[in-house]
Amino acid sequence: MPRSPGENAGMQTIDAAMLWTSRSGEDGAWQIDAGFDIDAAGRVRAQDRAQPSGSANWIVPGLPNLHSHAFQRAMAGLAEHQTNPEDSFWTWRETMYRFAARFDPDTLHAVAAQLYAEMLEAGYTTVCEFHYLHHAPDGRPYADPAAMSRALISAARDTGIRLTLLPVLYMSGGFDGRALSQRQQRFGHGIDDYMRLLDTLRRDEHDGLRIGCALHSLRAVPAEAMREVLAALPADSPVHIHIAEQIGEVQDCISIRGAPPVEWLLANAEVDARWTLVHATHLTDAEVQGIARSGATVAICPTTEANLGDGLFPLRAYLDAGGAWGVGSDSQISVSPVEELRWLEYGQRLVTRHRNIAVQGAGGSVGETLLRGALASAARASGHDIGHLEVGACADWITLDGDAPQFAGVHAADAVDRWVFSGNRNLVRDVHVAGTRVVADGRHCERDAIAARFRAAMHHLLAD
Amino acid sequence: MPRSPGENAGMQTIDAAMLWTSRSGEDGAWQIDAGFDIDAAGRVRAQDRAQPSGSANWIVPGLPNLHSHAFQRAMAGLAEHQTNPEDSFWTWRETMYRFAARFDPDTLHAVAAQLYAEMLEAGYTTVCEFHYLHHAPDGRPYADPAAMSRALISAARDTGIRLTLLPVLYMSGGFDGRALSQRQQRFGHGIDDYMRLLDTLRRDEHDGLRIGCALHSLRAVPAEAMREVLAALPADSPVHIHIAEQIGEVQDCISIRGAPPVEWLLANAEVDARWTLVHATHLTDAEVQGIARSGATVAICPTTEANLGDGLFPLRAYLDAGGAWGVGSDSQISVSPVEELRWLEYGQRLVTRHRNIAVQGAGGSVGETLLRGALASAARASGHDIGHLEVGACADWITLDGDAPQFAGVHAADAVDRWVFSGNRNLVRDVHVAGTRVVADGRHCERDAIAARFRAAMHHLLAD
Repeated sequence: MPRSPGENAGMQTIDAAMLWTSRSGEDGAWQIDAGFDIDAAGRVRAQDRAQPSGSANWIVPGLPNLHSHAFQRAMAGLAEHQTNPEDSFWTWRETMYRFAARFDPDTLHAVAAQLYAEMLEAGYTTVCEFHYLHHAPDGRPYADPAAMSRALISAARDTGIRLTLLPVLYMSGGFDGRALSQRQQRFGHGIDDYMRLLDTLRRDEHDGLRIGCALHSLRAVPAEAMREVLAALPADSPVHIHIAEQIGEVQDCISIRGAPPVEWLLANAEVDARWTLVHATHLTDAEVQGIARSGATVAICPTTEANLGDGLFPLRAYLDAGGAWGVGSDSQISVSPVEELRWLEYGQRLVTRHRNIAVQGAGGSVGETLLRGALASAARASGHDIGHLEVGACADWITLDGDAPQFAGVHAADAVDRWVFSGNRNLVRDVHVAGTRVVADGRHCERDAIAARFRAAMHHLLAD
Repeated sequence: MPRSPGENAGMQTIDAAMLWTSRSGEDGAWQIDAGFDIDAAGRVRAQDRAQPSGSANWIVPGLPNLHSHAFQRAMAGLAEHQTNPEDSFWTWRETMYRFAARFDPDTLHAVAAQLYAEMLEAGYTTVCEFHYLHHAPDGRPYADPAAMSRALISAARDTGIRLTLLPVLYMSGGFDGRALSQRQQRFGHGIDDYMRLLDTLRRDEHDGLRIGCALHSLRAVPAEAMREVLAALPADSPVHIHIAEQIGEVQDCISIRGAPPVEWLLANAEVDARWTLVHATHLTDAEVQGIARSGATVAICPTTEANLGDGLFPLRAYLDAGGAWGVGSDSQISVSPVEELRWLEYGQRLVTRHRNIAVQGAGGSVGETLLRGALASAARASGHDIGHLEVGACADWITLDGDAPQFAGVHAADAVDRWVFSGNRNLVRDVHVAGTRVVADGRHCERDAIAARFRAAMHHLLAD
């Protein structure tokens, strides 16, 4: 079983044939025959020249997954049949609510562990878990009100993934302040109970676990409650929020709060680099500029946003404005940074009928631009010192298989493009978190045991 | 080394826990504990009830790949950097031409073998190869004018994939009848040489190899030449053509031939079920209806059409019209029927902002609708008796891993949706073509040897 990140990983020296280095303020780039030392706490202690090893290790900092609802892994593929000719996000949500009602801490643990193992195999080394399944199905808190949160923490620990747990504040069923529906009861908190949950969980923070704050959405958190919670948070707490995913939600916000969600949020909260705006699909030009100026990160979830028919994020305008962004697997219908990144770009191509849209910096590589973007926001969005392998950072990295056919004849200038835009075999060979190897030869080291528990949980969840 | 399809596969009886059956005129569906016998020629001889085996074999007819340019596998990932702020299909084509100039029969063989092995591992058992790289780089025919065709035939034989080879007629560089450019010289034929090539290749046809005809596009084949070639073809020859991929091409066709490409083609050729229209992205409503009425198949290539910024096929209107369609991997930036099928659906969702668009028939499953569609056109588009496992059909099938986590607690009603819409691990465990197993436990049985030859070819192709 992998240790929790940071537990006694031991001193090590890592050599890479090629190492992806990204210093702040500079473009990331490949460095030849580079390596680094790791201290016993799983942090980078020093950077070295490596001996030319003849190995084919292409080492990249682990990717952060900025948005995850772990329990939804269990319903992947189960909402792809028509329930209504007008199927949309909103009918999907009905299916999701029915499914959510079946979880308890044990099944959540088993499903999250399967998911996190899959994330690690795909190259995600940190997950930001946007967690709203707090209480028992009837809405009453569990004997331990943090039981569901602890199930997620325990799944992260069992798999070795680095976790930013974002307990969600969910108070009302719409912009009009209506009460939660029956099926939303298990998501809800009053402010005091919510702050108590954060306090409780913060006591368990360690190098591999950060506790942040998530506001479900503007429609679920009244303005006054939002202010109160934000004022009470530690100054360095990450804050995540679902925003502007659906046009209906944008319209409701305009009619009740007088402005679209992002505009309203920027005017009513001190949005800064601690913030991650999830989806942010439907934006005015002024909102695009406003987010970029604020320093907030947009968490884009291309596979989920396509699966749910949300729409396309205005990436090119946002890059031009200098905005920070990352990707998330969200509803888990796909667990792959490669699929997220390439379809983020492809969506732009389909709309503009041009190619190579997400291009910034030297070399003009789309893949490198996307990789740099996804890594650059990692630390601010997660609250962990990740996304690079400078001295002091978390020693989280993935090793791409330089011997794979996809890399035949590879040059540094095209390596990232080949990884992101070529084929469907997973190029991630090994994965380390805090210096501990959790994936070897493409398989999580506890893959079979985790899958067995997942299978049992699925039979339970799907029983009539 | 796999035998060529049909060579002495031996008598066998196959048992499936679940078998996907699709009789003509009926919806495909899962059948429990079903099986079939195979004769020595690799055809289905009889259908059986299987003994309940406790196995977790979910058996599906192999999928056809309706559109492939094999050589482009070598440039996957190499055209994803900006050459020009106005990058588009047309600048991509310049990169492709430079790359195409480097191939000879040996490198084409090595690259195609790698590609075909990847296709088999992904679940494609037949490939329709749209082949235009005919001559030496200077445009002169090789000593054997069919040398490049034979390289592809030989790659198919080495990997065991079923092949429909479609030598391409490519005569002019635009609708105005201009001559081929220097870099297009190696693609070109006069009609007599082209018909001679088809005759030569047809002599080598066997159960695993059909020779069809491809017209590169309306812009590359003058109207009179098209009529002459079509008149000379055998009555059952498949005919494939690139059509209406790019808006520029549609506009040129309107201005020079007086109608958009599909309208012009339907008015000037007897388009019927032998025809496959590749891309057909930009259509009027009347053209949508016209293709559907003709019985032709549209080959949709969602990953390539997104990568090239082509646009989205009007799938829902075409399904309503009863049109036949299938998918192709085209430029090989992805080799996965799963990615093609799910993004075919997702494109529609992004445009309509609704979910579950491609739904026909009982059950309302999107995955089943897509699978049925991709199989239903397989025989007519390829000229092989494939896409089903009825008596007399080619015994080509893929076995999905029923023990995989993606299938935990699976029901027949959601199995195809889970395959298509859940996760990124490849569920294809075993693949048989003409009764011969070519993929076992997810690996092509010659994977390493084929990859070694591919690697050598790539070093040669990429050498300065």
